[in-house]
Amino acid sequence: MKVLVINCGSSSLKYQLINMEDEKVLAIGLVERIGIEGSVLTQKVNGEKYVIEQPMQDHKVAMSLVINALLDKEHGVISDMSEISAVGHRVLHAGQKYCSSVLINDDVMEAIKDCIKLGPLHNPANITGINSCKEFMPNTPMVAVFDTAFHQTMPEEAYIYALPYEMYTKYGVRKYGFHGTSHKFVSTEAIKMLNGAKNLKIVTCHLGNGASICAIKDGKVIDTTMGLTPLAGLVMGTRCGDIDPSIVPFLMKEANMSADDVDNLMNKKSGVLGISGISSDFRDIENAAKEGNKRAQLALKIYDYKVKTAIGAYVAALDGVDAIVFTAGLGENSATNRADICEGLSYLGIKLDPEKNALRGKAMEISTPDSKVKVLVIPTNEELMIARDTKEIVDSAK
Amino acid sequence: MKVLVINCGSSSLKYQLINMEDEKVLAIGLVERIGIEGSVLTQKVNGEKYVIEQPMQDHKVAMSLVINALLDKEHGVISDMSEISAVGHRVLHAGQKYCSSVLINDDVMEAIKDCIKLGPLHNPANITGINSCKEFMPNTPMVAVFDTAFHQTMPEEAYIYALPYEMYTKYGVRKYGFHGTSHKFVSTEAIKMLNGAKNLKIVTCHLGNGASICAIKDGKVIDTTMGLTPLAGLVMGTRCGDIDPSIVPFLMKEANMSADDVDNLMNKKSGVLGISGISSDFRDIENAAKEGNKRAQLALKIYDYKVKTAIGAYVAALDGVDAIVFTAGLGENSATNRADICEGLSYLGIKLDPEKNALRGKAMEISTPDSKVKVLVIPTNEELMIARDTKEIVDSAK
Repeated sequence: MKVLVINCGSSSLKYQLINMEDEKVLAIGLVERIGIEGSVLTQKVNGEKYVIEQPMQDHKVAMSLVINALLDKEHGVISDMSEISAVGHRVLHAGQKYCSSVLINDDVMEAIKDCIKLGPLHNPANITGINSCKEFMPNTPMVAVFDTAFHQTMPEEAYIYALPYEMYTKYGVRKYGFHGTSHKFVSTEAIKMLNGAKNLKIVTCHLGNGASICAIKDGKVIDTTMGLTPLAGLVMGTRCGDIDPSIVPFLMKEANMSADDVDNLMNKKSGVLGISGISSDFRDIENAAKEGNKRAQLALKIYDYKVKTAIGAYVAALDGVDAIVFTAGLGENSATNRADICEGLSYLGIKLDPEKNALRGKAMEISTPDSKVKVLVIPTNEELMIARDTKEIVDSAK
Repeated sequence: MKVLVINCGSSSLKYQLINMEDEKVLAIGLVERIGIEGSVLTQKVNGEKYVIEQPMQDHKVAMSLVINALLDKEHGVISDMSEISAVGHRVLHAGQKYCSSVLINDDVMEAIKDCIKLGPLHNPANITGINSCKEFMPNTPMVAVFDTAFHQTMPEEAYIYALPYEMYTKYGVRKYGFHGTSHKFVSTEAIKMLNGAKNLKIVTCHLGNGASICAIKDGKVIDTTMGLTPLAGLVMGTRCGDIDPSIVPFLMKEANMSADDVDNLMNKKSGVLGISGISSDFRDIENAAKEGNKRAQLALKIYDYKVKTAIGAYVAALDGVDAIVFTAGLGENSATNRADICEGLSYLGIKLDPEKNALRGKAMEISTPDSKVKVLVIPTNEELMIARDTKEIVDSAK
């Protein structure tokens, strides 16, 4: 069984074709600048690149080129579209409607539309992706895998904000959480690495340009740092995370900004970029910090401090912790960040093995054998998680 | 030496006259509805009440009546104004200017004025209070005791928000923290109760209608939950605490509210009042919860959950904890809240003694002898702290 995984942005389309028998990626591709001058498709098969540069006015054109690339006699990996058994679509926001992945039908499309106000940038792009796909594969089953779904097990005390209750019932203002597919993937892998023990208490740290932490008990989310939107929680590349919410009206008044200005400031100009004034890319900031740039050093210090205290908060939410998992760009690759964060958690009996912590590229335990809490690095694989969910749902619908 | 402590609100004036030799309160009083119909002064001396009802158009008139009440032959406690050696004024906001209490002079008055934009409700009232006092006691030394000062030891990684750095340098947007006088008082008392041990790691929980938590290492604040304003951090009586800051622009758009509307909603209509829809008074909510009201139960659950996770975060900030201190209305009086909060902290080796936890009204240890972390209840006394600071500063200025 081959599953095509699609992740559509407003001007981009990422895809992977995965053979589910051995979970091997047959082809991986990215279409950029859809609807913008300079559209380009890049597909990789066994490390070999295939590039198509031609105008693509919309996602439908982009999708047709993806299919051509997959079928291409020289660079492709399939000889007939019928080889694709199912398509898994990454979708940002399902509100409270779905607590797991779901076979796409008219109701599901309606629900994704209903959540546009909660995911104004992503949901419309996700709808476009699904519709373009349907044009070319009208009879292939498609599955929506939501970024919010894994978090739907949170108890009320974690997801209800202390606002007038009508803000929840009337406008849907609550904590939803994001990066669900990644947290699900790494927590599932962590449980396997810990021999499938029951009732495990795990804190998963997805630390990329976007960042969130999740408290997971017996495989179920009990809290997560992102909120109504992916702005909340940790400090990120360009996002501020949690701040005194009074700062929004304060800046509107004092700096004469509009609500959209402040929203844009918090989402695009803040985070480590805002503190350092240098870059949202951690490699740039780490280099500047090494050269003695004080604000770059401060940005890293604040980033790690927020991760450390968020872990502390979730260990309290779980009343203890068996394992802490690091994943995503920074979580997988920055040994210094992991060391900084864990150094402040010695009260939990955490001990890192510096040699193991210096390795990278594979799932492994980086704590010492006598560490009271296991610390794991697990490369995330959202595409594989989407493909697995898709296969499971299509199989069970047969 | 007798010190007069003054705490001025926009239409109120609280005062205490304290004899510093034995720290005994000689008189305690409250003037309400200043500048509003129905002005009234109530003074208590040895439990006996003395009430003056008469129009008071401003704080100057109120202050003259306070002096009359203190000098009153029948109900007063002094026979001459010269018996008051110093006055200590509670002042909300000193920005970054003062990290401790300070003798009031023109520079200090200027600094308090400069911070009006940071404390738009309180600082003007505090200035009025100081000026009224000066009218009647021009030669008496006066000390300003700031709610923000104790927190000024916080390191940068705790007080800098992940916003563009210019928001800090240009508009003073940073974490200041409040309830400093209370956190200072109870942490000082806690250190005494723990025999003055060095390098103690203490988490102080001021849980009243306003609520904040403080991480204190060796007597110095390293982090606190309130922020630029007293809205941030925990859930409170009517304040929402930390929420996804995107909720502000979201509600402005979806609910068609102005920035002031949302600010007002977050400060006055949220917290346990907003969740429960019943009251901001915990006694009302506890009663409703006992009668089975689901939203009252939810409000208490959320309140306790946020306290618990904030303690967890600060234990991580401190890398361990020696003592947790509860104070203020709820912190001193609600055994059930304390039990709920501590139950989820068993991973720290915390054990409460249910019998001790049920007592109230005095400073005491409520953990068991084998608890790995001491849990203390310490009634706060901000007025005494203000008087102590005032005495110390006036003495050292001699």
